[in-house]
Amino acid sequence: MRTVSAAAIAARGIRSYGRIAQTRRKIGGGGGWGMVVVREYASSSSGRKTEGGEESGRTPSAYETRLSPSLMQRFLFKKATHSIAELYRDATIAASVASSSSSEPPKVVLHGWIDGAPRKMSKKLTFARLRGVQFDVDADEQNTIQLVQFRSGKEEVERDGEVLARMKQETPVCVEGTVSQHQGTNRYEVKIISITALNHPHDLASQVREAKEWDPKDRYLQLRTPQLQRALAIRSKAAKIVRDQFISLDGFTEVETPLLFRSTPEGAREFLVPSRANERKFYALPQSPQQYKQLLMAGGVHRYFQIAKCFRDEDLRADRQPEFTQVDLEMGFAGAEDVIDVVERCVARLWGEVRGAELQVPFPRMTYLEAMTRYGIDKPDVRGGMEIIDLSEFATATVHKDYPVFEILIYRPLPTSSPLPDPSPPPIYPTLRTPYVFQLDSPASVTTWLMQCQQKFNLELTSGDLTTTARAIAEKYDLRAGDVVYACTRQSMPFENPTPLGRERLQILRETGVLDNESFAPLWVVEFPLFTPLEKAEVVDGHIEFDYDSLTATHHPFTMPALDSLPQVMSAIESGEQVDPRTVLGQHYDLVLNGVEVGGGSTRIHDSLLQRLIMAHILRIPHVEPDPHAAQPRNPFTHLLTALSMGCPPHAGLALGFDRVCAMLAGSESIRDVIAFPKTHTGADPLVGSPSEVTDAALDVYHLRRKR
Amino acid sequence: MRTVSAAAIAARGIRSYGRIAQTRRKIGGGGGWGMVVVREYASSSSGRKTEGGEESGRTPSAYETRLSPSLMQRFLFKKATHSIAELYRDATIAASVASSSSSEPPKVVLHGWIDGAPRKMSKKLTFARLRGVQFDVDADEQNTIQLVQFRSGKEEVERDGEVLARMKQETPVCVEGTVSQHQGTNRYEVKIISITALNHPHDLASQVREAKEWDPKDRYLQLRTPQLQRALAIRSKAAKIVRDQFISLDGFTEVETPLLFRSTPEGAREFLVPSRANERKFYALPQSPQQYKQLLMAGGVHRYFQIAKCFRDEDLRADRQPEFTQVDLEMGFAGAEDVIDVVERCVARLWGEVRGAELQVPFPRMTYLEAMTRYGIDKPDVRGGMEIIDLSEFATATVHKDYPVFEILIYRPLPTSSPLPDPSPPPIYPTLRTPYVFQLDSPASVTTWLMQCQQKFNLELTSGDLTTTARAIAEKYDLRAGDVVYACTRQSMPFENPTPLGRERLQILRETGVLDNESFAPLWVVEFPLFTPLEKAEVVDGHIEFDYDSLTATHHPFTMPALDSLPQVMSAIESGEQVDPRTVLGQHYDLVLNGVEVGGGSTRIHDSLLQRLIMAHILRIPHVEPDPHAAQPRNPFTHLLTALSMGCPPHAGLALGFDRVCAMLAGSESIRDVIAFPKTHTGADPLVGSPSEVTDAALDVYHLRRKR
Repeated sequence: MRTVSAAAIAARGIRSYGRIAQTRRKIGGGGGWGMVVVREYASSSSGRKTEGGEESGRTPSAYETRLSPSLMQRFLFKKATHSIAELYRDATIAASVASSSSSEPPKVVLHGWIDGAPRKMSKKLTFARLRGVQFDVDADEQNTIQLVQFRSGKEEVERDGEVLARMKQETPVCVEGTVSQHQGTNRYEVKIISITALNHPHDLASQVREAKEWDPKDRYLQLRTPQLQRALAIRSKAAKIVRDQFISLDGFTEVETPLLFRSTPEGAREFLVPSRANERKFYALPQSPQQYKQLLMAGGVHRYFQIAKCFRDEDLRADRQPEFTQVDLEMGFAGAEDVIDVVERCVARLWGEVRGAELQVPFPRMTYLEAMTRYGIDKPDVRGGMEIIDLSEFATATVHKDYPVFEILIYRPLPTSSPLPDPSPPPIYPTLRTPYVFQLDSPASVTTWLMQCQQKFNLELTSGDLTTTARAIAEKYDLRAGDVVYACTRQSMPFENPTPLGRERLQILRETGVLDNESFAPLWVVEFPLFTPLEKAEVVDGHIEFDYDSLTATHHPFTMPALDSLPQVMSAIESGEQVDPRTVLGQHYDLVLNGVEVGGGSTRIHDSLLQRLIMAHILRIPHVEPDPHAAQPRNPFTHLLTALSMGCPPHAGLALGFDRVCAMLAGSESIRDVIAFPKTHTGADPLVGSPSEVTDAALDVYHLRRKR
Repeated sequence: MRTVSAAAIAARGIRSYGRIAQTRRKIGGGGGWGMVVVREYASSSSGRKTEGGEESGRTPSAYETRLSPSLMQRFLFKKATHSIAELYRDATIAASVASSSSSEPPKVVLHGWIDGAPRKMSKKLTFARLRGVQFDVDADEQNTIQLVQFRSGKEEVERDGEVLARMKQETPVCVEGTVSQHQGTNRYEVKIISITALNHPHDLASQVREAKEWDPKDRYLQLRTPQLQRALAIRSKAAKIVRDQFISLDGFTEVETPLLFRSTPEGAREFLVPSRANERKFYALPQSPQQYKQLLMAGGVHRYFQIAKCFRDEDLRADRQPEFTQVDLEMGFAGAEDVIDVVERCVARLWGEVRGAELQVPFPRMTYLEAMTRYGIDKPDVRGGMEIIDLSEFATATVHKDYPVFEILIYRPLPTSSPLPDPSPPPIYPTLRTPYVFQLDSPASVTTWLMQCQQKFNLELTSGDLTTTARAIAEKYDLRAGDVVYACTRQSMPFENPTPLGRERLQILRETGVLDNESFAPLWVVEFPLFTPLEKAEVVDGHIEFDYDSLTATHHPFTMPALDSLPQVMSAIESGEQVDPRTVLGQHYDLVLNGVEVGGGSTRIHDSLLQRLIMAHILRIPHVEPDPHAAQPRNPFTHLLTALSMGCPPHAGLALGFDRVCAMLAGSESIRDVIAFPKTHTGADPLVGSPSEVTDAALDVYHLRRKR
């Protein structure tokens, strides 16, 4: 037990921590501050007076077993009779407040925190605000109430934990009182009969609450703010609606899939988990329940559903978390239409009940090609108009054979618009493939503009004549002086995604403030190319080169080709030549909302042989033996391929990014706002100190050691 | 593309895989089995006839784009109109079946599997059983229905995928037909109009279904059995009830807590996860959300709830899984009584709605001491009587000073009982502390028995006289000839748990078949000792020695002492002496059902200083600085201690073992039966091949390497 001088204690402001009365006395005997603390717990005295006897510094061995009533009160407090919102819903209270008769008003007991510093009006009268416990997501302005304490000064003993004026911000309290009208408002106030502090907060608690910037270490303090209280309540409500919709209404079964999974070669980097019992082997945390949910389909689970944790050890750019949550589902004896139907009804219900926004069901659909053509991106924000215009009827670009389509974007600034942003360089490409920007000052300048384009993009004009073409374009699209024209090229089936004009469009819409948080435009993007050619390392004249012979699955290898595309697929398999990815579409569907991909899924390949053929011949995944009767070497898909061959029914599914959905419902830009304890951009949680150091001995257990 | 001879294909029985018709033809040209497969997909021929042209072995280059209708049917099938259970609930169907009029019966479309081999009665008539998709947990006998197919033989084309007689077991099908009475039963049958195979299962699928033992690799086939279908449905229903109860009725907010946590020193071994972005640091997977849920309390979440994944890298004895699920909750401004109340109402509802068993609320309560005294274990199965009898009024044991209580168990075998098991040695202790067993052959033998006990346990008789004592015992407990008496000793406050007689009692009850799966006895065990003394390595005369100076928390360090025990705690802290664990009780509560601990929780220490004092002085956890104003070295509890000091309200919580609860609801002995994809006893999942090997390059990323 350390001995600490009273002066030292006083210097540290120990008084602020509790009711240590004896700061000016010299502490005698052993025990130091420990004994002082025991006095804190043992004495029934207040912060200012002490009961007789302790002044004389008696020795610890005469320690009394009588414990301080105010300590006990921290553990023995009355149950609340109401939350604040419930007060307003209580008709008896309302009647009593309204009547202002002299009869005894009903007593209530409330729990909550002292919200803001109490305001001492006089020796006897103090006001404070109580922040209640039950955050009502539908009535958040009702979560505080005014407290009034009138003390005659003749109270028998003044205990700090009962004097409102001396309570600190963020003190959790139990209040018993009566309800009356808060004069001059339509709100209630509580006249305190008794109030008890249930804990004594450190000064830092209130200082941090006032801060503008939040340190991750103070996350639990930040959780007390209305914004985060609301965000957590919205998330809980959203999860409830989703479950209710799928499980109660649509006959889904909730099934948990394992998180101790295995390493697979596709997609992002995974988190590894060394195994103690299986020497030198590792689990991996799954990026999604994809494979297990298909095994559930093979297992006869008719409709599977789960709100699942997923993990991805990637760079955490652009509002990503290493650990995130998906609403995950799969349907047996089903296809795309079945999944699309249940999902859009669920999403519409979510937006209706949580956000009060009505989304028309069924959602509109757009093909990938259409999205790339009109909006330049596979997750278009269709609000704000300003679609991209394909000028193929007038000209073809020949500067690069893979990018023949000549297209433009017309921006018509309002007289009041701020100056335009410069065309932003694409962030990734070393050589800039930016649109050619030209502001028309007169109709005639269209010809000048077209001439520039002709040079820049090596255009072949359909009509052969520059002026005619220019005039035709100007007339068709009603070009006027002041219009800003962005011109660029793209592929016929664009794999460059977004296209330069697509990127431009989004930037203009954002900077001109057209896109808000109040309107919602959902749509399904369908008919994606099933396969995506690999991007070559070299960039030619700013153009990305694609290797049309090396293909990856656009979404994942388990996506079924469109039935219309099956002939091409079979033909390629048979002939041994690679399929042309520009001609093969897949049964994938993405759900896009305001330009954000909130979810996606596909009809799966439930035929084991077709799955193997595609993996082996088109995707050229190693170790996949296409011959169904040859022994299958162990590859990461063996279990799935085998399960498909054991009478697995047709199935389709989807996953929604639940963090993203909740952020949109809460009107937040960042998913950090809807996660209780998010990680930083380096994947750390400074609050709990994760990740942390681990001893060499701990690593020994796994036969691992650190490299020097 | 490999070339495979037709003979080889035939030899491998490729015919069983699909409709490869040309097994007897020599395959010409390139393509081999690939072309054969293409023919499978391409031809519209059946297994027996082929359409004209293919016999002549034309070359692949003339590949036709016409795809086989039966392939297409696997992807384009009709939606089901009913599940089997819904058929029985459909009044129109019922009326039509009952009327047996000649008017057109309504058509239905069903999905499901061929369950068992079809029974071909004649060339034209085949019966089979369809196993439906929607497992109805309340009506599981209705999940199959008889199919009848009558084929005239004049069908235009016979496609394998449409002939019931040639369909294999476990073929997923789409059936269109009419419903009629299954003669001689009260069940329906479906007369097939058309039936389509939606996949072709391998023969193994049916062979495995018939097997008695299930290989983990075939888990998805095992999931098709009624037992596992029912188990998953029960689990889904239980989760729904739990959420509905807590969230809808009791005002809880569902909050997700992180799984990428940090290493903590308490409890079981943890799974580590190396971090790429934070060099040389590791996450750990949490054993429970304990710390985060207390941070949520500090964050003002009023009532937190989660169905959470937990992880424990321990030896997987006795029906444990490395990854398991808890129903986790915490309540702010609350204590034990609040938690006990909401939990028992939820558990009673679960047993009522899922099991049809009525549990009376409130559940009975028993103190730890009472449980150890009467039943010899802290999770007593109170069914079956046969309580342990404390003979302290008659004698005290002195063979070991820590084990003074002399107690007995009386087993009265029925005339029909099988012979008793020998007293089993305790599995852990090197020297056996087994009860002394004595079967009374006459009332007089009680004296003999007592004399033996006196010697064995060095008894000091209260009355001083052997015969008097023996007679008094015999009279008080009505001992008779034939009774078997088990005698042993225990500590006054037993930390040896279970006691030898406790272990004995359970074994007798199990072996005599008293404990069944039909009756349920829930109770709360309360008033545990807050601290448990460390077991010393040495065992003296079979007695475990305890070090009463080295204490650990019986449950966890965050459990609040009973208010009546606070004086002892404070006194010890003040004096610097260790507290006597036999005198300090804690506010912990365990929920026990049929001798199984299904959950437990406690009122927490919400006072930061008290928490530190207990950690530092009593538990002697390193690096916990009790002085609140000294800088707190970083220890695994720093964040929690700080959060408590920032105005954290009083709180209490609990966690239920959800796998265990589901197993009990499903009437299963093992939690493996209620987990979709359980791990083996070595923590592996052979189905997906986890854990798996990982390359050295993958480990390099974390600056780790394997030890040789």
